This record gives sequence, C-alpha cells and structure tokens, in this order.
Amino acid sequence: MYFSLQIKEKMTKRPLILVTNDDGITAPGIRALIEVMKTLGDVVVVAPDSPQSGMGHAITLNSTLHIDEIKITEGDQKEFSCSGTPADCVKIAVNEILNRRPDLCVSGINHGSNSSINVIYSGTMSAAIEAGIEGIPAIGFSNLSYEWNTNFEASKLYVKSIAQNVLNNGLAEGVVLNVNIPDLESKDIKGVKICRQAKANWKEEFDKRKTPQGKDYYWLTGKFENYDKGEDTDEWALKNGYVSVVPVQFDLTAHHCIQQLNTWEFDNN
Amino acid sequence: MYFSLQIKEKMTKRPLILVTNDDGITAPGIRALIEVMKTLGDVVVVAPDSPQSGMGHAITLNSTLHIDEIKITEGDQKEFSCSGTPADCVKIAVNEILNRRPDLCVSGINHGSNSSINVIYSGTMSAAIEAGIEGIPAIGFSNLSYEWNTNFEASKLYVKSIAQNVLNNGLAEGVVLNVNIPDLESKDIKGVKICRQAKANWKEEFDKRKTPQGKDYYWLTGKFENYDKGEDTDEWALKNGYVSVVPVQFDLTAHHCIQQLNTWEFDNN
Repeated sequence: MYFSLQIKEKMTKRPLILVTNDDGITAPGIRALIEVMKTLGDVVVVAPDSPQSGMGHAITLNSTLHIDEIKITEGDQKEFSCSGTPADCVKIAVNEILNRRPDLCVSGINHGSNSSINVIYSGTMSAAIEAGIEGIPAIGFSNLSYEWNTNFEASKLYVKSIAQNVLNNGLAEGVVLNVNIPDLESKDIKGVKICRQAKANWKEEFDKRKTPQGKDYYWLTGKFENYDKGEDTDEWALKNGYVSVVPVQFDLTAHHCIQQLNTWEFDNN
Repeated sequence: MYFSLQIKEKMTKRPLILVTNDDGITAPGIRALIEVMKTLGDVVVVAPDSPQSGMGHAITLNSTLHIDEIKITEGDQKEFSCSGTPADCVKIAVNEILNRRPDLCVSGINHGSNSSINVIYSGTMSAAIEAGIEGIPAIGFSNLSYEWNTNFEASKLYVKSIAQNVLNNGLAEGVVLNVNIPDLESKDIKGVKICRQAKANWKEEFDKRKTPQGKDYYWLTGKFENYDKGEDTDEWALKNGYVSVVPVQFDLTAHHCIQQLNTWEFDNN
C-alpha cells in the first residue's frame, strides 16, 4: 500500500528541486546545475546575490534579508536572488518561497574543491547541510577548477547520475552528500568512488603587508596538505581521476570518546 | 623517560593558553574566561573586534585582516583584537602572534546556548574546531543565558575544572569539547554530564516586514525544537541542571553509509 502510493506519486508528480550555491546566482556553475536539474524535475533557484565563499555555516542573525525574483537564463525554472548566506537561502526557500517541501536540494556546482577538511569552510556544503537538517535529501557539488569559465560538460554527466540516484534511493536520515569532480574531460574520468573525508588541512601563510599609512595588515593564504595515505579517501579518488562522493553527517558527536571522558573527575572547588 | 620529560616540562613551564570567542573581545563572557585561564597558565587573547554570532565556520578570504594589541582588563595576559571571524582569530594567533604552539585553546564563554544542532552555526565552536584542526586541544564554553550581564560565577568553577582535565589528560586526535552550562547558581548545578548531541533543530519563522518604500524584507527568527527523548543528550542534561560536555569531531564522514552507497549504479550516459 505504502509502496504503491509512492509509485503513484512518482508517476504523477515531477520532483521539486531546490537549487542554490555559494558563488552567487550568476555563476556558471549554478547555471550548469540548473540545466541538469531541469531534466529531472521542476526547478526553483534561491541563491545568494553575491559570492559567499568561505562562509562556513553562517546565518544572518543581525541583519535583514531581501529576496528578488529574477531570471538569469531562459527556461521555466523560477529564480530568486537572496541577500543572505547559502544557509539563509535554504531556510528562506523552504519557509517563504516554496509551497511544498522539495524532494531534493542541490548546491553548486562550486568553482573549486570542497574535498576533505574544506567541507567545514564550505558555503556550498553549508547549504546542503542546512537542507539535510530540514530533512530534505541534499547534495553539494564542486568542480576542482577555480576558473570561472571552466568546462562543466563532464561534471554535468556525473551530477545527473548522482542526483538521479538520490531521487530514486533517498538518503539515510542525517546524511547529505559531498561530491567533488576532477577538472578533466569526460573520457578521462574513471567513474565514481564512495569515500571518506581525507585527514588534511591548510597550512596557513599570512601575507603581511603595510597600509599606505604604515600599519600592518594581512591576507590569509595557505597551502593544502594531505596527511592521509588511505586509498579510500576523497583526496585519493580525485587525484586518481575519480569523482568523489563522501556521505556527510551533522551529528558531530565523537561517540568513540564518550566512554573515556566518563572516567574524568570534575572537582568544582 | 618520556614520562619524566613530560613531568619536567609540566613542572618548569606554565601552559600557554589561547583565548578567543565570538561575542567580541569586550564581552563579559570572555572576561570571565580570561580570569579563570590566568589561574591555569599564561594567557594570550586573540578575539574578534566585534560580535560574530551565527558566523559558523566562516573565514575571511576576500578581505584583509587587521590586528591591534589592546588591553581591556588588568593583568599580565596579552590581548589582541582582530577584524576577522573566530576561525580567523585562531589561524592568525597560531601563525602570526604566538611564538610557540598553545597547550590549550578555549573559546567563549558564549552568551547563549551552543548545544545540539547549534554547534553547526556557532562561531564559538568554530574557533575551537579550528584549533582542533591545527592539533591543539580545544574547548568551546557557552552559558545558556543570552543576557550580557549574566552572572558567570558558577560557570567559572566548571570552566576551570574541565580545562584542567584537558590540560592533564589531553584530548583524542580530531576531537574538541562543546561545553554548555545552565543559567543556574552554583548550588543548583548538579554536576557534569558527558553527552551526545541531541537531534533537534530550529523551526524558522521569518518575520516579514515592509521597507518605508514598500518592498518586502525579512528577519530570521525561530523556535528551537528538540525531537530527541534520549537521556544521554546535551539537551536532557541542561534541562536537568547539568553542565553538558559533548566531544565533537570534524571528520564529518557518515561511515555507516558507505557500504549502502557502494550498491548504487552510476550511469553516465
């Protein structure tokens, strides 16, 4: 009974897909993502009106939010630009713009990697995680090229295949997908690998300069360092020509530590 | 040999403690935290020059960073205000300000809860997580009161005891602590509970208004909803008068999903 209802719904209704990103609504990456999603369902775009890279899971608490209905490229998708962060876009889409719960939320295609520890800093992934918190199956897509005009043709094939799988199979509760795609032509991509997040981080190098008035200031720069030799990591997959898919959770509890912490004595005098 | 070297180091050198927060360097919460840390070690404060609540794990990529050495309260601690986010503060402290690796990084005491899903949006916790990524034992402290002039006396007892434990015992690699303290007098706090993150979220309510020009705009508001009946959660502990300690990890991989995702077929035609 439940099964046949599901089938019926699938047959009669196209999925509703919410599209967002962190590079801003005019970025070529989100344009490629919209194009693919239109082949899978009805698309509503709610994306930042300006680039939001490195915003992590920021939300707008101390300022107002504005939405404008706009249209960047042709088609029957609805599009809204929002003054907030990627997480704000998802919140306002679900609560103020959409008239029903989306079947899928996709974020990206980001211009640049969100593999490994970058998931923590990523605006692209914060939108996917926000949707996941709201119980919506969600995927963040990133292409390893930082170039604005990179070729998304190969990415589009994998975006479609992975999104179709999520629409068909769903995702476990509390889990979203972090997908990174190598900057390669389609014929050179070896396939999809399900991975764990590599243990890697950024070795910061602050570029220290002086203002015209002689006061020090800094630019944050850095070098990405992968300490993880595992062949089951996203870094390994990407380096070896695969699309990496990491299931990401937002229960951050380190369950394996609870027992040990329970041996500590807390003396409050 | 290793053990006696450790002991010797502990006897001859006071721990170096980096203190930061997200409410800004002048907040009463960080003042209380500095006071406690000065009883445990040598303190260097690097904190945002203005409030950064809800900043998640944002970092400053497209703008410059400024640091000023200042002194808000008396004592031999060194203090620096920074124009960036809490995560920026930790990065710049470790790379540009401190002349050795800190033994502990503490963030807070936040004015307001960072329990449950709030860990994701929290600037306080993003500083602790950033320190954790850099391999520094780290703790984020929050008091459940949102009042600027709340009484931190009870909090200080627990802050000291938990920080002392981390200095003595260390923390597992890849783990930091998220500590929340009820807004109660010391005599009414029942003790410390090691917890898991409760499954809860915010039910958003956007407050829709009109500008003087008649255009819609929104304020993000919401109601916190706890769906988790478990008695091992941070929400349960706080509601029942305990200080909650959740070990938090930044490997976000949902390892339990990898096997199932490996059954999916990816067709790229």
